[in-house]
Amino acid sequence: MSVDDGHYRPTYNDIHKLIGNSAKKIRDEFKPDLFVAIGGGGFYPARVMRTFCKTPGRKNIPIQAIGLSLYEEMGTEDSTQEKLGKEIVRTQWLDFSTLGKMSLLGRRILIVDEVDDTRTTLAYAISELQQDLEKQLAALPEEKRKTIPKTEFAIFVVHNKLKEKAASLPSDIMYFSGEDLGDVWVDYPWEMLDIDKHEELAAAQKKLRAEQQS
Amino acid sequence: MSVDDGHYRPTYNDIHKLIGNSAKKIRDEFKPDLFVAIGGGGFYPARVMRTFCKTPGRKNIPIQAIGLSLYEEMGTEDSTQEKLGKEIVRTQWLDFSTLGKMSLLGRRILIVDEVDDTRTTLAYAISELQQDLEKQLAALPEEKRKTIPKTEFAIFVVHNKLKEKAASLPSDIMYFSGEDLGDVWVDYPWEMLDIDKHEELAAAQKKLRAEQQS
Repeated sequence: MSVDDGHYRPTYNDIHKLIGNSAKKIRDEFKPDLFVAIGGGGFYPARVMRTFCKTPGRKNIPIQAIGLSLYEEMGTEDSTQEKLGKEIVRTQWLDFSTLGKMSLLGRRILIVDEVDDTRTTLAYAISELQQDLEKQLAALPEEKRKTIPKTEFAIFVVHNKLKEKAASLPSDIMYFSGEDLGDVWVDYPWEMLDIDKHEELAAAQKKLRAEQQS
Repeated sequence: MSVDDGHYRPTYNDIHKLIGNSAKKIRDEFKPDLFVAIGGGGFYPARVMRTFCKTPGRKNIPIQAIGLSLYEEMGTEDSTQEKLGKEIVRTQWLDFSTLGKMSLLGRRILIVDEVDDTRTTLAYAISELQQDLEKQLAALPEEKRKTIPKTEFAIFVVHNKLKEKAASLPSDIMYFSGEDLGDVWVDYPWEMLDIDKHEELAAAQKKLRAEQQS
């Protein structure tokens, strides 16, 4: 395997630090009180984000997991649907039986995933969460509604690929990425069968890049 | 901070390899078709376990996340309840709206967490899943019931602490741990604010242990 094969190979420690750096900004600028991790890729970043957003002496910020898969990833042949919602399959959603039926109201919700590639999954997640929120708001009497602070959503992804996106996000949503990339293939450490080989290639690539820049 | 402070410091790569080694056994001996990750600690191990249990050309094994917290961790003062169920708070449960109401029947379910300390959380998870299973079985006519293979549960934890446990598991449940430990404090990498320092201390401890053993 050539080192210069176009794959980008962040190590666990690289990603841990990217999350730590973003967490400073996110705590200052957004102050989340609920994480929504998009599984499976968002599970690990959300867990680390919780560490960096923890205020000593206060409770952990809760993580709710949701599962979303693109149809094509599920081996279904018909992936030509035009509507965004139809391309995506929910495998798990927020648990309102434990979170409470009014649980989104007034919250500051950070949605966490590993990579923003086509943006399809993120746009779906935001749109569905906002629909849930509208339903929760509509169930309240108007006077009550006025007393509730605006629910805010933000997004954190470890990597954002700077490329044309298939979907867009509402303009009032804060967006944080650990690192912006070109349209490269990212080898995440949690996907690797041989983690020593991954680290070795990652180190060789870093050395090569440093040499090319000097 | 002394190196010999009694904390055990696995690195990300250490844990990744522990999971890889266990996965071989788990694939051979249990063959899971559903992972249940106990959040937040089980999120990362479940994601890596999925990588190592993936059969090329076949779909990923799905991960469902559940959230369980001990009362004491939630800052509630009354943690003296005698009943197991009362010590634990569900923050998220399986999503039967997407998983299907009969979803547990005939499945081979691997429950994943980071550490088996007092065993309380694991025993609760198994007991509640088995109750859900009983309900799903009871909803079927008897002839149908006979055609369904036995639902199997197994447990995987990255670390099992060899200590007196506050709860026990049913005897027919397979149990896998990445590594057995004494009753030591484990510093997980995803809990660390300074990952470089963590790696440094971990390396120094490994060196010290190697010297002590030689």
